[in-house]
Amino acid sequence: MPPRTDFATMRCPVARTMAVVGERWSILVLREAFYGATRFDEFQRNLGIAPNILSARLRTLTQHGVLEKLPAGRGRRETAAAGAAEPDGASAAGGYAITEKGRDFFPAFLALKRWGDRWMTDERGPLILLEERATGREVTAPPVLASNGQPLTPDQVRVRPGPGAGTALRARFSPKEDQDA
Amino acid sequence: MPPRTDFATMRCPVARTMAVVGERWSILVLREAFYGATRFDEFQRNLGIAPNILSARLRTLTQHGVLEKLPAGRGRRETAAAGAAEPDGASAAGGYAITEKGRDFFPAFLALKRWGDRWMTDERGPLILLEERATGREVTAPPVLASNGQPLTPDQVRVRPGPGAGTALRARFSPKEDQDA
Repeated sequence: MPPRTDFATMRCPVARTMAVVGERWSILVLREAFYGATRFDEFQRNLGIAPNILSARLRTLTQHGVLEKLPAGRGRRETAAAGAAEPDGASAAGGYAITEKGRDFFPAFLALKRWGDRWMTDERGPLILLEERATGREVTAPPVLASNGQPLTPDQVRVRPGPGAGTALRARFSPKEDQDA
Repeated sequence: MPPRTDFATMRCPVARTMAVVGERWSILVLREAFYGATRFDEFQRNLGIAPNILSARLRTLTQHGVLEKLPAGRGRRETAAAGAAEPDGASAAGGYAITEKGRDFFPAFLALKRWGDRWMTDERGPLILLEERATGREVTAPPVLASNGQPLTPDQVRVRPGPGAGTALRARFSPKEDQDA
């Protein structure tokens, strides 16, 4: 049996996505970044996460370009940094900012939140609501609709090889496969 | 330091979501289910996954009600089962079907795929395209737009306590916090 598979080397973009955000805590670190955290101690306090795990997750997210280190002296968005000490010294005084790549994950985060709010809450409902600052409008992931206006279900979808598909995927998802669908 | 945190016991629905789908391979097992796999050997062949890991992931997804075991004798959607032997005997002759809860994860899968297709592919582009069977229309996660019609960014969003929020979340996300935004 081969050693632990490195998802970052798999060709499937969804597998590669899980190499970036699929480690335990990664999505929650990103959640905190979306909710405004920038400093190591903010992430740590809000998550109740062990410092060594937090350092590792911030490192992975930074290496993949989802977060970026801010220069020392800048911590909170638009405000002077508080200069909080960081327990393990791994990230000096600068904070972490979300990159364009990280911001572009926000729709996926909203989609995960929508599913969690629907299926993984108790009877009281969502813990957190998001609203657009400018309008107060609630922000949720938009539904995925079929052409008939109803929610699209997976069985209404056909898989096709994309421009990056190799021989195996082309063979697997060639049109003749539809016969047994 | 406390032992490994059980995300399923965290109150945050996103954390609980990661308890269901955040384990390595889980999203890829679900991907195969969305793409039509039902039998153990299909999952195994398409994923190149070790049988014991696959058994564990199928068990987690079934325990959380995302997949359900089909009675023996039913494998592929709408067709008679091929009755393939399953190497580790963990799941007898029946296959796995996606439940309503699992189907409802499809939009989140599409959102993860969209991000992966944008940020985690090489220059050739997506491996896989999805299209609506009935129309041939390409299926992708819909963009999340602000009221001005532009893509919504996380900094345009304010966090509010939801109906399920406890004291700590209410204190953290009460309106006065907006002062430093």
